[in-house]
Amino acid sequence: MKQIFINATVITMVGEEEPFQGALGIEDSRIIYVGPVPTREELDTYDQVIDVSDRAMMPGLINAHGHAAMSLLRGFADDLPLQEWLEEKIWPLEGKFTAEQVRAGTALSVLEMLQSGTTCFLDMYDHMDQVGQVVADAGIRAKLCRGAIGFGSEELQQSKLAEAVQFSKDWEGAADGRITTMLAPHSPYTCSPRFISQFIEKAAELQVPLHTHMSETAREVQQNIDEYGLRPVEHLRRLGFFDLPSLVAHAVHVTEEEIAVLAQYDVKVAHNPGSNLKLGSGIAPIPQMLKKGIRPALATDGAASNNNLDLWEEIQLAALIHKGFHQDPTVIPAREALRMGTSYGAEALFLEKEIGTLEIGKKADFITIDLKGAHMWPPHDLISHLVYSASRGDVLDVYVDGKALIRNRASLTLDEEKIRFEAMRAFQAIAP
Amino acid sequence: MKQIFINATVITMVGEEEPFQGALGIEDSRIIYVGPVPTREELDTYDQVIDVSDRAMMPGLINAHGHAAMSLLRGFADDLPLQEWLEEKIWPLEGKFTAEQVRAGTALSVLEMLQSGTTCFLDMYDHMDQVGQVVADAGIRAKLCRGAIGFGSEELQQSKLAEAVQFSKDWEGAADGRITTMLAPHSPYTCSPRFISQFIEKAAELQVPLHTHMSETAREVQQNIDEYGLRPVEHLRRLGFFDLPSLVAHAVHVTEEEIAVLAQYDVKVAHNPGSNLKLGSGIAPIPQMLKKGIRPALATDGAASNNNLDLWEEIQLAALIHKGFHQDPTVIPAREALRMGTSYGAEALFLEKEIGTLEIGKKADFITIDLKGAHMWPPHDLISHLVYSASRGDVLDVYVDGKALIRNRASLTLDEEKIRFEAMRAFQAIAP
Repeated sequence: MKQIFINATVITMVGEEEPFQGALGIEDSRIIYVGPVPTREELDTYDQVIDVSDRAMMPGLINAHGHAAMSLLRGFADDLPLQEWLEEKIWPLEGKFTAEQVRAGTALSVLEMLQSGTTCFLDMYDHMDQVGQVVADAGIRAKLCRGAIGFGSEELQQSKLAEAVQFSKDWEGAADGRITTMLAPHSPYTCSPRFISQFIEKAAELQVPLHTHMSETAREVQQNIDEYGLRPVEHLRRLGFFDLPSLVAHAVHVTEEEIAVLAQYDVKVAHNPGSNLKLGSGIAPIPQMLKKGIRPALATDGAASNNNLDLWEEIQLAALIHKGFHQDPTVIPAREALRMGTSYGAEALFLEKEIGTLEIGKKADFITIDLKGAHMWPPHDLISHLVYSASRGDVLDVYVDGKALIRNRASLTLDEEKIRFEAMRAFQAIAP
Repeated sequence: MKQIFINATVITMVGEEEPFQGALGIEDSRIIYVGPVPTREELDTYDQVIDVSDRAMMPGLINAHGHAAMSLLRGFADDLPLQEWLEEKIWPLEGKFTAEQVRAGTALSVLEMLQSGTTCFLDMYDHMDQVGQVVADAGIRAKLCRGAIGFGSEELQQSKLAEAVQFSKDWEGAADGRITTMLAPHSPYTCSPRFISQFIEKAAELQVPLHTHMSETAREVQQNIDEYGLRPVEHLRRLGFFDLPSLVAHAVHVTEEEIAVLAQYDVKVAHNPGSNLKLGSGIAPIPQMLKKGIRPALATDGAASNNNLDLWEEIQLAALIHKGFHQDPTVIPAREALRMGTSYGAEALFLEKEIGTLEIGKKADFITIDLKGAHMWPPHDLISHLVYSASRGDVLDVYVDGKALIRNRASLTLDEEKIRFEAMRAFQAIAP
């Protein structure tokens, strides 16, 4: 089916292109036209013409790192020292998560992400078949990986590795290609070098990228030095992690030299400003990364440490906190922050050929934004308004693969009431 | 008229009181009941019973520092070095502001503030009769002051002082007491000591508090030292500014000693995290202030440097940035951040006897919040959800002085389309 959306303010996120009044045409799952509103004659070649006056159209947001099922624990424990939060609150409950909790929590998160304009997310967790099924049913796009913590017996470790490999084989390209996969040893501080090497070997075999947590806290960096005599970047580099396409989450505590190595190996970085602030981890050196040519993506991390999955907040935080921290209002201008939430996100997930910008031939993953809110007025600079003024409430419609998933803020594929009910039931089943 | 709102989750913001399922009763402009849902018999004594199931009720947010008319310049210039932004972009346009621009910009801002749940704001600007009229018509509460920059001839300065005094006399207690006033020399770096002293003298005479910008940037602190041999706090202290009830905006660059002086004189502080970050001014030492007993309020500053007037974002920033900056997740817990946006805001505006908490005898300034959003679920900890997950889109109803101003997100007192039209026209009249 051919559809065209007309009279929108179109933001392609291609290079320095400015927003313009125009139209976006799609056929089935792909974009076939971006430009001025066509003539009546040309419009007649479409099956459906949709007027989106007073709205912006832009690429859907991309959430480059998270743990969707953790929304079950949103607000369950806050404002505690990191180890106490993890060891006494989060881990004991997560340890009780079964397929039911993962399915219910992931559905709640996917609903929240779609309603706030996120069309693609990375998820690193357990019981990933559940996550795959929710993604398939909801219509969202996702990069999925079974995150493996390398504690416990050799047998347990090998079963996790096998599970990760099997998941990748089963789901790569599933749901009309909306699902792709990665392999993800959890982190250098929870996985032995040998365990990480096994993941690298399998990723090369399967030809999928690698993902891991890296240098989120000062403490784990010190632990790496104490244990291996190396900082995490050099540790992973020597293991060959960066020889494959790879994405690291956080990279808060990295030196100039480490940034240079990440840039040299074209390692992708997922910046999680909200989570890093809330957990007291610190402020990642994003301006320095940008200077060295790294194009960081944005991510929410899990809802237990954010506490929402709203990428607008991450975009705004990325645009604000580095200016304040460096006392320099010119670092990370609005357009760069918006790229971090869209086109750089696509690159970080190795999906830049398919999504991240509005261009002919790419997947029709886009959102429409209400431009009539008082906080979006006067319409001096739409990119600035999106970054510094907009919020999730301004997202009206969400399309993935050319299909409407959210229309006028309401979900078309997910039953909101059922999701709330099942999330509550799943939490109560494991509540302390 | 007696009204009672039942089945709400009530958040009083009184001390350590926990949210509870209950009711809020009001008679005309004041709260007459806060507690469990009363018996049928007691409900019958009310003229109207309103069911607010699935909603929270809490005090309206208080925006303790801003320049409402500047919303006309929202997004007009961003991401520039501070002096270039001010001198080449903002000041030349502000210089052209007449009563029309101030009226139109203020109306746009009041609409935005009401829709995002702000029931009281401080405004420091010019053409304040226009601001007073907008406030009177819209039904919001405000603390207003004619901000006086002490540049130019002695005659010009004296005319500004006279205007500030006259405005205070004309508007103190206006609009059924919704409008109260302050006197506001702009800042130590734009006002001579003599000019500031004249404001102090008049404030004592009129018995109104004082307000000023203080120590927003490292540069202005250095300038104060170069010019007067003193840092701004000691400079203002010696002038007697702190001998009267006083509120300073920003206080980003203050030392431990200066914080001690502010605490000693019970000086109120308006923390503007969004504006301070965006302009690259820095990060105010709020945890240190709290330790010394200062209870900072929150504020957006003008929309040209924020770029919205959304106090939810300021609450979230206050809860997040200090944790990240100090690498300590325990500083400024959620409840403290929410106090900064409500009860501490009331104290900062010297209105704590009337607003800031839901208590019998106080003004009925309150808002209702939708609790059914995916991002607010599961309902583990409402205070946490409000601070870390909520956004302006969750605000459903807004009441000031017991009158509904916003119902189900729509304004009852302001014509949204007219406001957008007039804001655009007012900007175009001065556009470069």
